[in-house]
Amino acid sequence: MKRIMLRVAYDGTAYNGWQIQPGGTTIEGELNKALSDLLEEEIAVIGASRTDAGVHALCNVAVFDTDTRIAPERIAPALNARLTEDIRIQESREVASDFHPRKCPTRKTYEYRIYTGKYENPIGRQYAHFVYVPLDEEKMQKAAEYLVGEHDFKSFCVAKAQVLTTVRTVYAVQVKREGSYLTIRVSGSGFLFNMVRIIAGTLIEVGRGSMEPEQVKAILEAKDRQAAGPTAPARGLTLISLEFCEKRD
Amino acid sequence: MKRIMLRVAYDGTAYNGWQIQPGGTTIEGELNKALSDLLEEEIAVIGASRTDAGVHALCNVAVFDTDTRIAPERIAPALNARLTEDIRIQESREVASDFHPRKCPTRKTYEYRIYTGKYENPIGRQYAHFVYVPLDEEKMQKAAEYLVGEHDFKSFCVAKAQVLTTVRTVYAVQVKREGSYLTIRVSGSGFLFNMVRIIAGTLIEVGRGSMEPEQVKAILEAKDRQAAGPTAPARGLTLISLEFCEKRD
Repeated sequence: MKRIMLRVAYDGTAYNGWQIQPGGTTIEGELNKALSDLLEEEIAVIGASRTDAGVHALCNVAVFDTDTRIAPERIAPALNARLTEDIRIQESREVASDFHPRKCPTRKTYEYRIYTGKYENPIGRQYAHFVYVPLDEEKMQKAAEYLVGEHDFKSFCVAKAQVLTTVRTVYAVQVKREGSYLTIRVSGSGFLFNMVRIIAGTLIEVGRGSMEPEQVKAILEAKDRQAAGPTAPARGLTLISLEFCEKRD
Repeated sequence: MKRIMLRVAYDGTAYNGWQIQPGGTTIEGELNKALSDLLEEEIAVIGASRTDAGVHALCNVAVFDTDTRIAPERIAPALNARLTEDIRIQESREVASDFHPRKCPTRKTYEYRIYTGKYENPIGRQYAHFVYVPLDEEKMQKAAEYLVGEHDFKSFCVAKAQVLTTVRTVYAVQVKREGSYLTIRVSGSGFLFNMVRIIAGTLIEVGRGSMEPEQVKAILEAKDRQAAGPTAPARGLTLISLEFCEKRD
Protein backbone atom coordinates (compact mmCIF):
# COMPACT_ATOMS: atom_id res chain seq x y z
CA MET A 1 0.00 0.00 0.00
CA LYS A 2 1.35 3.43 -0.91
CA ARG A 3 0.02 6.99 -0.80
CA ILE A 4 0.09 8.90 -4.08
CA MET A 5 -0.19 12.65 -4.44
CA LEU A 6 -1.66 14.28 -7.55
CA ARG A 7 -1.27 17.90 -8.63
CA VAL A 8 -4.45 18.73 -10.49
CA ALA A 9 -5.18 21.66 -12.82
CA TYR A 10 -8.75 22.31 -13.95
CA ASP A 11 -11.05 24.71 -15.67
CA GLY A 12 -13.96 24.76 -13.22
CA THR A 13 -16.49 26.22 -15.71
CA ALA A 14 -18.35 22.96 -16.32
CA TYR A 15 -18.13 21.63 -12.75
CA ASN A 16 -20.18 21.81 -9.62
CA GLY A 17 -17.00 22.42 -7.64
CA TRP A 18 -14.45 20.03 -6.19
CA GLN A 19 -16.45 18.08 -3.65
CA ILE A 20 -18.75 15.19 -4.57
CA GLN A 21 -22.39 16.05 -4.11
CA PRO A 22 -25.69 14.73 -5.35
CA GLY A 23 -26.76 15.91 -8.78
CA GLY A 24 -23.65 17.52 -10.20
CA THR A 25 -20.42 16.67 -11.95
CA THR A 26 -17.47 17.42 -9.66
CA ILE A 27 -13.68 17.31 -9.98
CA GLU A 28 -13.42 14.86 -7.06
CA GLY A 29 -16.04 12.61 -8.66
CA GLU A 30 -14.27 12.61 -12.04
CA LEU A 31 -10.92 11.82 -10.39
CA ASN A 32 -12.39 8.94 -8.37
CA LYS A 33 -14.01 7.49 -11.50
CA ALA A 34 -10.86 7.75 -13.65
CA LEU A 35 -8.61 6.38 -10.86
CA SER A 36 -10.90 3.47 -9.99
CA ASP A 37 -11.08 2.61 -13.68
CA LEU A 38 -7.30 2.85 -14.18
CA LEU A 39 -6.21 1.07 -11.00
CA GLU A 40 -9.09 -1.42 -10.83
CA GLU A 41 -9.58 -0.56 -7.16
CA GLU A 42 -12.22 1.57 -5.44
CA ILE A 43 -10.43 4.93 -5.04
CA ALA A 44 -11.63 7.96 -3.05
CA VAL A 45 -9.24 10.90 -3.12
CA ILE A 46 -8.71 13.44 -0.32
CA GLY A 47 -8.45 16.96 -1.74
CA ALA A 48 -6.49 19.90 -0.34
CA SER A 49 -8.87 22.68 -1.40
CA ARG A 50 -12.56 22.09 -1.94
CA THR A 51 -13.05 24.81 -4.52
CA ASP A 52 -16.56 26.15 -5.28
CA ALA A 53 -18.59 25.58 -8.43
CA GLY A 54 -17.01 27.45 -11.34
CA VAL A 55 -13.69 28.12 -9.59
CA HIS A 56 -10.46 27.11 -11.38
CA ALA A 57 -7.17 25.66 -10.18
CA LEU A 58 -3.65 25.48 -11.54
CA CYS A 59 -2.44 23.14 -8.81
CA ASN A 60 -4.95 21.65 -6.42
CA VAL A 61 -3.68 18.59 -4.60
CA ALA A 62 -5.29 15.20 -3.96
CA VAL A 63 -3.98 12.06 -2.29
CA PHE A 64 -5.14 8.43 -2.29
CA ASP A 65 -3.88 5.02 -1.23
CA THR A 66 -3.36 2.22 -3.69
CA ASP A 67 -1.88 -1.27 -4.07
CA THR A 68 -1.12 -0.71 -7.76
CA ARG A 69 2.15 -1.80 -9.30
CA ILE A 70 2.00 1.07 -11.82
CA ALA A 71 4.96 3.40 -11.15
CA PRO A 72 3.69 6.53 -9.33
CA GLU A 73 4.91 8.95 -12.02
CA ARG A 74 3.14 6.95 -14.75
CA ILE A 75 -0.24 7.56 -13.15
CA ALA A 76 -0.43 11.20 -14.38
CA PRO A 77 -0.30 10.47 -18.13
CA ALA A 78 -2.53 7.40 -17.79
CA LEU A 79 -5.14 9.43 -15.89
CA ASN A 80 -4.95 12.29 -18.39
CA ALA A 81 -5.87 9.85 -21.15
CA ARG A 82 -9.07 9.05 -19.20
CA LEU A 83 -10.07 12.60 -18.23
CA THR A 84 -11.69 15.31 -20.36
CA GLU A 85 -9.36 18.12 -21.39
CA ASP A 86 -10.65 20.53 -18.73
CA ILE A 87 -8.91 18.47 -16.01
CA ARG A 88 -5.19 17.73 -16.33
CA ILE A 89 -2.98 15.99 -13.81
CA GLN A 90 0.33 17.86 -13.72
CA GLU A 91 2.23 15.44 -11.52
CA SER A 92 1.83 12.14 -9.66
CA ARG A 93 4.28 10.92 -7.02
CA GLU A 94 4.51 8.87 -3.86
CA VAL A 95 4.33 10.71 -0.52
CA ALA A 96 4.62 9.68 3.14
CA SER A 97 1.79 7.37 4.14
CA ASP A 98 0.59 9.84 6.80
CA PHE A 99 0.58 12.91 4.54
CA HIS A 100 -2.88 14.52 4.64
CA PRO A 101 -3.28 17.65 2.47
CA ARG A 102 -5.81 19.30 4.80
CA LYS A 103 -4.02 18.45 8.04
CA CYS A 104 -0.65 20.01 7.45
CA PRO A 105 0.33 23.68 7.41
CA THR A 106 -0.08 25.15 3.95
CA ARG A 107 0.27 28.40 2.12
CA LYS A 108 -2.52 28.77 -0.42
CA THR A 109 -2.58 31.47 -3.06
CA TYR A 110 -5.65 32.48 -5.01
CA GLU A 111 -5.89 34.97 -7.85
CA TYR A 112 -9.06 36.88 -8.59
CA ARG A 113 -8.99 38.38 -12.12
CA ILE A 114 -11.09 41.34 -13.23
CA TYR A 115 -11.41 42.55 -16.82
CA THR A 116 -11.96 46.30 -16.91
CA GLY A 117 -12.58 47.17 -20.58
CA LYS A 118 -15.56 49.14 -21.82
CA TYR A 119 -17.16 45.94 -23.12
CA GLU A 120 -16.41 42.37 -22.13
CA ASN A 121 -13.49 40.51 -23.77
CA PRO A 122 -14.80 37.17 -25.12
CA ILE A 123 -11.28 35.72 -25.10
CA GLY A 124 -10.57 34.41 -21.63
CA ARG A 125 -14.02 35.45 -20.36
CA GLN A 126 -14.20 32.11 -18.49
CA TYR A 127 -11.30 33.22 -16.27
CA ALA A 128 -12.18 36.82 -15.41
CA HIS A 129 -15.04 38.84 -13.96
CA PHE A 130 -16.03 41.80 -16.14
CA VAL A 131 -16.40 45.18 -14.40
CA TYR A 132 -17.16 48.11 -16.70
CA VAL A 133 -16.90 50.93 -14.14
CA PRO A 134 -13.40 52.34 -13.54
CA LEU A 135 -11.58 50.80 -10.56
CA ASP A 136 -8.97 52.63 -8.50
CA GLU A 137 -6.35 49.97 -7.78
CA GLU A 138 -4.45 52.15 -5.32
CA LYS A 139 -7.50 52.43 -3.09
CA MET A 140 -8.06 48.70 -3.47
CA GLN A 141 -4.50 47.98 -2.38
CA LYS A 142 -4.90 50.30 0.60
CA ALA A 143 -8.09 48.49 1.62
CA ALA A 144 -6.40 45.12 1.15
CA GLU A 145 -3.70 45.95 3.72
CA TYR A 146 -6.29 45.82 6.52
CA LEU A 147 -6.86 42.14 5.74
CA VAL A 148 -3.26 41.07 6.20
CA GLY A 149 -2.52 39.25 9.46
CA GLU A 150 -4.52 37.05 11.80
CA HIS A 151 -8.14 38.20 12.00
CA ASP A 152 -11.62 36.89 12.62
CA PHE A 153 -12.95 36.80 9.03
CA LYS A 154 -16.58 36.13 10.03
CA SER A 155 -17.68 39.11 7.89
CA PHE A 156 -15.97 37.50 4.87
CA CYS A 157 -17.65 34.13 5.19
CA VAL A 158 -21.00 32.71 4.11
CA ALA A 159 -23.20 33.17 7.21
CA LYS A 160 -24.37 29.56 7.34
CA ALA A 161 -20.86 28.04 7.15
CA GLN A 162 -20.23 25.45 9.86
CA VAL A 163 -16.67 25.90 11.07
CA LEU A 164 -15.02 25.70 14.48
CA THR A 165 -13.41 29.10 14.09
CA THR A 166 -13.58 31.93 11.60
CA VAL A 167 -10.09 33.13 12.54
CA ARG A 168 -7.64 32.86 9.65
CA THR A 169 -4.24 34.30 8.73
CA VAL A 170 -3.82 36.20 5.50
CA TYR A 171 -0.14 36.50 4.57
CA ALA A 172 -0.44 38.95 1.70
CA VAL A 173 -2.92 40.67 -0.61
CA GLN A 174 -1.67 42.35 -3.79
CA VAL A 175 -3.72 44.30 -6.29
CA LYS A 176 -1.98 44.58 -9.65
CA ARG A 177 -2.98 46.03 -13.01
CA GLU A 178 -1.74 44.53 -16.28
CA GLY A 179 -3.33 46.25 -19.26
CA SER A 180 -7.11 45.92 -18.95
CA TYR A 181 -6.81 43.23 -16.29
CA LEU A 182 -6.72 43.78 -12.57
CA THR A 183 -5.60 40.90 -10.40
CA ILE A 184 -6.15 40.46 -6.67
CA ARG A 185 -3.67 37.90 -5.32
CA VAL A 186 -4.38 36.59 -1.84
CA SER A 187 -2.14 34.22 0.15
CA GLY A 188 -3.11 32.63 3.43
CA SER A 189 -2.93 29.55 5.60
CA GLY A 190 -6.48 28.67 4.65
CA PHE A 191 -9.72 30.33 3.64
CA LEU A 192 -13.33 30.19 4.76
CA PHE A 193 -16.16 29.31 2.41
CA ASN A 194 -16.42 32.07 -0.25
CA MET A 195 -13.83 34.15 1.64
CA VAL A 196 -11.66 35.11 -1.36
CA ARG A 197 -14.72 35.94 -3.46
CA ILE A 198 -16.13 38.17 -0.68
CA ILE A 199 -12.72 39.86 -0.33
CA ALA A 200 -12.75 40.45 -4.12
CA GLY A 201 -16.34 41.74 -4.03
CA THR A 202 -15.45 44.12 -1.19
CA LEU A 203 -12.28 45.40 -2.88
CA ILE A 204 -14.29 46.03 -6.07
CA GLU A 205 -16.70 48.18 -4.01
CA VAL A 206 -13.70 50.15 -2.75
CA GLY A 207 -12.22 50.39 -6.26
CA ARG A 208 -15.41 51.83 -7.74
CA GLY A 209 -15.70 54.34 -4.90
CA SER A 210 -18.74 52.88 -3.10
CA MET A 211 -16.64 52.23 0.01
CA GLU A 212 -13.57 53.85 1.57
CA PRO A 213 -10.45 51.70 2.15
CA GLU A 214 -10.65 52.43 5.89
CA GLN A 215 -14.08 50.78 6.08
CA VAL A 216 -12.46 47.37 5.75
CA LYS A 217 -11.26 47.68 9.34
CA ALA A 218 -14.82 48.25 10.53
CA ILE A 219 -16.08 45.36 8.35
CA LEU A 220 -13.65 42.98 10.08
CA GLU A 221 -14.75 44.28 13.49
CA ALA A 222 -18.45 43.89 12.66
CA LYS A 223 -18.10 40.08 12.36
CA ASP A 224 -21.20 40.19 10.20
CA ARG A 225 -21.46 39.01 6.57
CA GLN A 226 -23.83 41.92 5.83
CA ALA A 227 -21.06 44.44 6.52
CA ALA A 228 -18.83 43.25 3.63
CA GLY A 229 -19.33 43.66 -0.13
CA PRO A 230 -21.04 41.13 -2.41
CA THR A 231 -19.57 37.74 -3.32
CA ALA A 232 -17.74 38.24 -6.63
CA PRO A 233 -18.58 35.66 -9.35
CA ALA A 234 -16.74 32.30 -9.30
CA ARG A 235 -15.31 32.54 -12.83
CA GLY A 236 -12.72 35.15 -11.81
CA LEU A 237 -11.17 32.92 -9.15
CA THR A 238 -8.24 30.53 -9.61
CA LEU A 239 -6.24 28.61 -7.01
CA ILE A 240 -2.77 29.31 -8.33
CA SER A 241 -0.48 27.71 -5.77
CA LEU A 242 -0.47 25.45 -2.80
CA GLU A 243 2.65 24.93 -0.74
CA PHE A 244 2.91 22.49 2.11
CA CYS A 245 5.11 23.77 4.88
CA GLU A 246 7.34 21.75 7.16
CA LYS A 247 5.42 20.08 9.93
CA ARG A 248 5.75 21.81 13.28
CA ASP A 249 6.62 19.56 16.22
CA MET B 1 -27.68 56.28 -45.51
CA LYS B 2 -24.50 56.00 -43.48
CA ARG B 3 -21.67 53.47 -43.21
CA ILE B 4 -20.97 52.07 -39.75
CA MET B 5 -17.79 50.31 -38.68
CA LEU B 6 -17.78 47.68 -35.94
CA ARG B 7 -14.74 46.41 -34.02
CA VAL B 8 -15.56 42.83 -33.15
CA ALA B 9 -13.88 40.55 -30.60
CA TYR B 10 -14.74 36.86 -30.53
CA ASP B 11 -13.83 33.49 -29.16
CA GLY B 12 -13.90 31.40 -32.34
CA THR B 13 -14.14 28.02 -30.53
CA ALA B 14 -17.83 27.47 -31.26
CA TYR B 15 -17.84 28.95 -34.78
CA ASN B 16 -17.30 27.72 -38.27
CA GLY B 17 -15.16 30.79 -38.95
CA TRP B 18 -16.07 34.31 -39.99
CA GLN B 19 -17.62 33.82 -43.40
CA ILE B 20 -21.22 32.67 -43.92
CA GLN B 21 -21.39 29.16 -45.30
CA PRO B 22 -23.97 26.41 -45.50
CA GLY B 23 -24.33 24.24 -42.43
CA GLY B 24 -22.40 26.11 -39.77
CA THR B 25 -22.73 28.97 -37.33
CA THR B 26 -20.44 31.83 -38.33
CA ILE B 27 -19.47 35.20 -36.85
CA GLU B 28 -20.66 37.01 -39.99
CA GLY B 29 -23.99 35.17 -39.84
CA GLU B 30 -24.53 36.01 -36.17
CA LEU B 31 -23.70 39.68 -36.78
CA ASN B 32 -26.09 39.92 -39.74
CA LYS B 33 -28.88 38.33 -37.69
CA ALA B 34 -28.37 40.58 -34.66
CA LEU B 35 -28.01 43.74 -36.81
CA SER B 36 -31.06 42.99 -38.97
CA ASP B 37 -33.07 42.36 -35.81
CA LEU B 38 -31.85 45.53 -34.10
CA LEU B 39 -32.11 47.90 -37.07
CA GLU B 40 -35.15 46.31 -38.70
CA GLU B 41 -33.37 46.34 -42.06
CA GLU B 42 -31.73 43.55 -44.04
CA ILE B 43 -28.04 43.95 -43.09
CA ALA B 44 -25.06 42.14 -44.65
CA VAL B 45 -21.71 43.15 -43.16
CA ILE B 46 -18.39 43.27 -45.02
CA GLY B 47 -15.59 41.84 -42.87
CA ALA B 48 -11.91 42.78 -42.90
CA SER B 49 -10.47 39.34 -42.08
CA ARG B 50 -12.30 36.14 -42.89
CA THR B 51 -10.82 34.10 -40.06
CA ASP B 52 -10.94 30.28 -40.19
CA ALA B 53 -13.06 27.97 -38.05
CA GLY B 54 -11.82 28.04 -34.45
CA VAL B 55 -9.65 31.15 -34.87
CA HIS B 56 -10.14 34.04 -32.41
CA ALA B 57 -10.05 37.81 -32.79
CA LEU B 58 -9.58 40.74 -30.44
CA CYS B 59 -10.45 43.31 -33.10
CA ASN B 60 -11.79 42.16 -36.41
CA VAL B 61 -13.59 44.88 -38.37
CA ALA B 62 -16.91 44.86 -40.21
CA VAL B 63 -18.80 47.61 -42.02
CA PHE B 64 -22.42 47.95 -43.17
CA ASP B 65 -24.77 50.62 -44.51
CA THR B 66 -27.90 51.62 -42.69
CA ASP B 67 -30.70 54.19 -42.62
CA THR B 68 -31.14 53.85 -38.86
CA ARG B 69 -31.60 56.87 -36.64
CA ILE B 70 -29.86 55.10 -33.74
CA ALA B 71 -26.66 57.01 -32.90
CA PRO B 72 -23.66 55.06 -34.29
CA GLU B 73 -21.97 54.64 -30.88
CA ARG B 74 -25.18 53.23 -29.36
CA ILE B 75 -25.15 50.30 -31.80
CA ALA B 76 -22.33 48.46 -29.93
CA PRO B 77 -24.14 48.04 -26.56
CA ALA B 78 -27.47 47.30 -28.27
CA LEU B 79 -25.84 44.59 -30.40
CA ASN B 80 -24.00 43.11 -27.41
CA ALA B 81 -27.35 42.63 -25.69
CA ARG B 82 -28.43 40.49 -28.68
CA LEU B 83 -25.23 38.44 -29.11
CA THR B 84 -23.96 35.48 -27.07
CA GLU B 85 -21.04 36.26 -24.77
CA ASP B 86 -18.43 34.78 -27.12
CA ILE B 87 -18.90 37.73 -29.52
CA ARG B 88 -18.52 41.27 -28.20
CA ILE B 89 -18.62 44.47 -30.22
CA GLN B 90 -15.90 46.75 -28.83
CA GLU B 91 -16.79 49.87 -30.80
CA SER B 92 -19.30 51.17 -33.36
CA ARG B 93 -18.81 54.41 -35.28
CA GLU B 94 -19.58 56.10 -38.56
CA VAL B 95 -16.92 55.97 -41.30
CA ALA B 96 -16.61 57.43 -44.80
CA SER B 97 -19.24 55.99 -47.14
CA ASP B 98 -16.53 54.54 -49.42
CA PHE B 99 -14.49 52.87 -46.66
CA HIS B 100 -14.06 49.16 -47.51
CA PRO B 101 -12.06 47.14 -44.95
CA ARG B 102 -10.61 44.76 -47.56
CA LYS B 103 -9.81 47.40 -50.17
CA CYS B 104 -7.57 49.71 -48.21
CA PRO B 105 -4.00 49.17 -47.06
CA THR B 106 -3.88 47.48 -43.68
CA ARG B 107 -1.42 46.15 -41.18
CA LYS B 108 -2.76 42.94 -39.65
CA THR B 109 -1.18 41.28 -36.64
CA TYR B 110 -1.83 37.71 -35.59
CA GLU B 111 -0.57 35.93 -32.51
CA TYR B 112 -0.05 32.18 -32.41
CA ARG B 113 0.20 30.90 -28.82
CA ILE B 114 1.86 27.65 -27.81
CA TYR B 115 1.73 26.09 -24.34
CA THR B 116 4.90 24.17 -23.61
CA GLY B 117 4.32 22.47 -20.24
CA LYS B 118 4.79 18.76 -19.60
CA TYR B 119 1.01 18.27 -19.59
CA GLU B 120 -1.66 20.54 -21.03
CA ASN B 121 -2.94 23.51 -19.02
CA PRO B 122 -6.76 23.31 -18.90
CA ILE B 123 -6.98 27.04 -18.13
CA GLY B 124 -6.85 28.92 -21.39
CA ARG B 125 -6.57 25.70 -23.44
CA GLN B 126 -9.04 27.23 -25.94
CA TYR B 127 -6.44 29.87 -26.84
CA ALA B 128 -3.22 27.91 -27.11
CA HIS B 129 -1.81 24.89 -28.93
CA PHE B 130 -0.14 22.39 -26.61
CA VAL B 131 3.34 21.15 -27.58
CA TYR B 132 5.01 18.84 -25.08
CA VAL B 133 8.42 18.57 -26.75
CA PRO B 134 10.95 21.31 -25.87
CA LEU B 135 11.06 24.18 -28.36
CA ASP B 136 14.16 26.27 -29.05
CA GLU B 137 12.79 29.79 -29.46
CA GLU B 138 16.09 31.21 -30.65
CA LYS B 139 16.13 28.85 -33.62
CA MET B 140 12.48 29.69 -34.25
CA GLN B 141 13.27 33.41 -34.28
CA LYS B 142 16.16 32.81 -36.67
CA ALA B 143 13.88 30.85 -39.00
CA ALA B 144 11.23 33.55 -38.76
CA GLU B 145 13.62 36.22 -40.09
CA TYR B 146 13.58 34.57 -43.54
CA LEU B 147 9.86 35.29 -43.81
CA VAL B 148 10.16 39.03 -43.32
CA GLY B 149 9.77 41.10 -46.50
CA GLU B 150 7.93 40.66 -49.79
CA HIS B 151 7.91 37.01 -50.84
CA ASP B 152 5.88 34.53 -52.81
CA PHE B 153 4.26 32.59 -49.94
CA LYS B 154 2.86 29.81 -52.17
CA SER B 155 4.52 27.20 -49.90
CA PHE B 156 2.66 28.69 -46.92
CA CYS B 157 -0.78 28.54 -48.47
CA VAL B 158 -3.43 25.84 -48.85
CA ALA B 159 -2.70 24.37 -52.30
CA LYS B 160 -6.24 24.74 -53.60
CA ALA B 161 -6.60 28.42 -52.65
CA GLN B 162 -7.87 30.57 -55.50
CA VAL B 163 -6.02 33.86 -55.37
CA LEU B 164 -4.63 36.17 -58.03
CA THR B 165 -1.21 36.22 -56.45
CA THR B 166 0.50 34.45 -53.56
CA VAL B 167 2.95 37.33 -53.07
CA ARG B 168 2.53 39.00 -49.70
CA THR B 169 4.57 41.29 -47.45
CA VAL B 170 5.39 40.24 -43.91
CA TYR B 171 6.49 43.22 -41.82
CA ALA B 172 7.70 41.39 -38.73
CA VAL B 173 7.75 38.01 -37.00
CA GLN B 174 8.63 37.79 -33.31
CA VAL B 175 8.98 34.66 -31.23
CA LYS B 176 8.70 35.38 -27.51
CA ARG B 177 8.64 33.19 -24.41
CA GLU B 178 6.63 34.16 -21.33
CA GLY B 179 6.74 31.43 -18.70
CA SER B 180 5.40 28.23 -20.27
CA TYR B 181 3.91 30.11 -23.23
CA LEU B 182 5.61 30.78 -26.51
CA THR B 183 4.05 33.38 -28.77
CA ILE B 184 4.65 33.86 -32.48
CA ARG B 185 3.54 37.35 -33.48
CA VAL B 186 3.25 37.98 -37.24
CA SER B 187 2.43 41.33 -38.86
CA GLY B 188 1.75 41.79 -42.55
CA SER B 189 -0.27 43.61 -45.16
CA GLY B 190 -2.45 40.56 -45.60
CA PHE B 191 -2.26 36.78 -45.34
CA LEU B 192 -3.14 33.84 -47.54
CA PHE B 193 -5.54 31.10 -46.48
CA ASN B 194 -3.98 29.25 -43.49
CA MET B 195 -0.71 31.19 -43.97
CA VAL B 196 -0.15 32.10 -40.30
CA ARG B 197 -1.00 28.57 -39.15
CA ILE B 198 1.45 27.07 -41.68
CA ILE B 199 4.11 29.56 -40.56
CA ALA B 200 3.44 28.47 -36.94
CA GLY B 201 3.54 24.78 -37.90
CA THR B 202 6.84 25.29 -39.72
CA LEU B 203 8.42 27.28 -36.86
CA ILE B 204 7.36 24.53 -34.42
CA GLU B 205 9.21 22.00 -36.63
CA VAL B 206 12.29 24.23 -36.40
CA GLY B 207 11.85 24.69 -32.65
CA ARG B 208 11.71 20.96 -31.99
CA GLY B 209 14.76 20.36 -34.15
CA SER B 210 13.10 18.58 -37.10
CA MET B 211 14.13 21.40 -39.44
CA GLU B 212 17.00 23.86 -39.56
CA PRO B 213 16.23 27.62 -39.55
CA GLU B 214 18.00 28.00 -42.93
CA GLN B 215 15.52 25.58 -44.54
CA VAL B 216 12.85 28.27 -44.45
CA LYS B 217 14.64 30.01 -47.31
CA ALA B 218 14.42 26.84 -49.43
CA ILE B 219 10.77 26.36 -48.44
CA LEU B 220 9.93 29.82 -49.79
CA GLU B 221 11.83 29.10 -53.00
CA ALA B 222 10.09 25.74 -53.51
CA LYS B 223 6.66 27.44 -53.96
CA ASP B 224 5.13 24.14 -52.91
CA ARG B 225 2.86 23.56 -49.90
CA GLN B 226 4.52 20.16 -49.35
CA ALA B 227 7.83 21.83 -48.56
CA ALA B 228 6.54 23.64 -45.45
CA GLY B 229 5.57 22.21 -42.04
CA PRO B 230 2.05 21.15 -41.03
CA THR B 231 -0.83 23.57 -40.45
CA ALA B 232 -0.86 24.29 -36.69
CA PRO B 233 -4.29 23.93 -35.00
CA ALA B 234 -6.72 26.87 -35.19
CA ARG B 235 -7.19 27.29 -31.43
CA GLY B 236 -3.74 28.85 -30.98
CA LEU B 237 -4.43 31.68 -33.43
CA THR B 238 -5.83 35.13 -32.59
CA LEU B 239 -6.14 38.22 -34.77
CA ILE B 240 -4.85 40.79 -32.31
CA SER B 241 -4.78 44.00 -34.28
CA LEU B 242 -5.88 45.54 -37.53
CA GLU B 243 -4.73 48.98 -38.53
CA PHE B 244 -5.94 50.78 -41.62
CA CYS B 245 -3.24 52.87 -43.21
CA GLU B 246 -3.64 56.13 -45.06
CA LYS B 247 -4.88 55.63 -48.59
CA ARG B 248 -2.21 55.95 -51.25
CA ASP B 249 -3.08 58.19 -54.17
